[in-house]
Amino acid sequence: MTTRDHQILNALPYPLVLLGGDQRIVAMNPPAVERLGAGLIGRSYVSLRQPALLDCIEQVFRTGQAGRTRYPGTGLDRDRTWSVLAAPLPEGILVSFEDVSELEQAGQARRDFVANVSHELKTPLTAMLGFIETLRGAARDDATARERFLGIMQREAERMNRLVNDLLSLSRVESDERMRPTAEIRLGDLVQSVIASLRPVAEPLGVTIDIDCSVDSQTIVRGDADQLTQVFFNLIDNAVKYGRDGKRVQVHMERVSRDSSLRGPAYHVTVQDFGPGFDPIHIPRLTERFYRVDSHRSREMGGTGLGLAIVKHIVNRHRGRFRIESTPGNGACFTVSLPAVA
Amino acid sequence: MTTRDHQILNALPYPLVLLGGDQRIVAMNPPAVERLGAGLIGRSYVSLRQPALLDCIEQVFRTGQAGRTRYPGTGLDRDRTWSVLAAPLPEGILVSFEDVSELEQAGQARRDFVANVSHELKTPLTAMLGFIETLRGAARDDATARERFLGIMQREAERMNRLVNDLLSLSRVESDERMRPTAEIRLGDLVQSVIASLRPVAEPLGVTIDIDCSVDSQTIVRGDADQLTQVFFNLIDNAVKYGRDGKRVQVHMERVSRDSSLRGPAYHVTVQDFGPGFDPIHIPRLTERFYRVDSHRSREMGGTGLGLAIVKHIVNRHRGRFRIESTPGNGACFTVSLPAVA
Repeated sequence: MTTRDHQILNALPYPLVLLGGDQRIVAMNPPAVERLGAGLIGRSYVSLRQPALLDCIEQVFRTGQAGRTRYPGTGLDRDRTWSVLAAPLPEGILVSFEDVSELEQAGQARRDFVANVSHELKTPLTAMLGFIETLRGAARDDATARERFLGIMQREAERMNRLVNDLLSLSRVESDERMRPTAEIRLGDLVQSVIASLRPVAEPLGVTIDIDCSVDSQTIVRGDADQLTQVFFNLIDNAVKYGRDGKRVQVHMERVSRDSSLRGPAYHVTVQDFGPGFDPIHIPRLTERFYRVDSHRSREMGGTGLGLAIVKHIVNRHRGRFRIESTPGNGACFTVSLPAVA
Repeated sequence: MTTRDHQILNALPYPLVLLGGDQRIVAMNPPAVERLGAGLIGRSYVSLRQPALLDCIEQVFRTGQAGRTRYPGTGLDRDRTWSVLAAPLPEGILVSFEDVSELEQAGQARRDFVANVSHELKTPLTAMLGFIETLRGAARDDATARERFLGIMQREAERMNRLVNDLLSLSRVESDERMRPTAEIRLGDLVQSVIASLRPVAEPLGVTIDIDCSVDSQTIVRGDADQLTQVFFNLIDNAVKYGRDGKRVQVHMERVSRDSSLRGPAYHVTVQDFGPGFDPIHIPRLTERFYRVDSHRSREMGGTGLGLAIVKHIVNRHRGRFRIESTPGNGACFTVSLPAVA
């Protein structure tokens, strides 16, 4: 083992373990120490312990041919999946580890996603099929039942339709999350027009929407108008629906000369309701797809379970921050921070 | 540059380029030559040409600090996305490339999938909403229209329901594709029972399903009974529906002492119809999700666009082969080969 070997191994980002001809561990680079543990230098390769890995190495020593294996980590690296190459050197073996966890997780994420979407659709579809059957059979000549069932069917179909639209929105936002939007948007005007479009929803529920705005309505941010409209629509619509008992939604807009998480001047838009709020324990998961504080209530309100996930992704794309606060009994407060144009 | 450096670089599976203190390329391992081209040894690092990569290297030479970059490949590696680390050595730089294409593709695949599913659902949902509106309005008191609309709505809802079920099936099959099923299945009995369950569908269409079977009905294969049932159900159901003009579906089952693609004895089950068939140009894409030879016709038949994708994944899980043939005007033929228990 030369210093030069060390230099090369240490210049590489993946875990590497060098074994000598005597089957002992000669060198490990820092990623290997981090994943496999310290204090292994000079010990036999069997100290690496992972059965699939040991089998693979043992075979390379026996045959002189390179070997590959793949296994889920345990202990220090239990959240990882490794793909390993053990390549023979004139003396000893160089073992390199490739972390394939993200790929495995991407596959798992897709399966979870399919399972969630299917679950969201199965219930309303089953209900629809039941109503259709009843309308063609038992309730064939019952005009009152018909009107009622058709009303429920319409709500369910509209909710499924919203779900499909939300899925498409989310997918689009994710695909251009790396491209920062560049149009100049008048933030105050945009928020005002969202409020105007939601008043017809709020009034029948007895909810007023107030705005107090300490900034010029002509304030410019760099953004995507459709996406920012969706952000404030989702937040204010939620506040009206879930906070309806509080009878009031307060929208507040201000300029902050230095936002520490954005490292510069920013605009903060806060949407506050005075309804029941929720246990803060839910906050970290609220922006996950299909996570709901109260599934039954969310569905009753026509929610798709995707609204806050969409908000989070749009705000990320705008290089902003999204913060949620709530005290049970005291309403909930959602804050969007967007970088101000310098 | 020593032989030892070469040995280490060549024992690693990812592309590696070693630059000397004079900014020339000293060594490249085989994966690097394959991706970046041959004949670069001894030339300046600017021969690597990728602008993002050159900027990164230039900065490492200037600052002595490791640098990272990420870029989509061009030329020889145009289908790849690379994440690169350039780490300083006492003399020169070691540049290592990580191929992150699969991860990028997994993201793209998910977005395509969402777009496809949304598209499949939007049309029937829009139709449903239209019918519901008409039934609550213009056609309120029209019993004939009501019966007709409810019939269409039921078909659409059933098809959406099948789509959701097929999505779940596909997701489940994919998630256990690596685990080979182990139960002992009587293949002949299983195929016979699928045929029996489909006769009530075939008869009203004037289609007969014949089986000619040169093997013992007790023939055993290793498999998953539910999944194999789904394979033959999908194939025979398709043959009945798309080949109905041919009035006959022929199922053939035989043992092959050596199947060259399976490298051993196998059972072949062939489902042949005598309908219009299709242009063989479609064959390579027929097992893709949502690919259809004729979208309109497929939807009319109640197809979800997922049937053959499910067949392919189930057959893969069984370490078998799936083959499609067709001559326009002469029907289509689908063959499933499954390894015989030795």
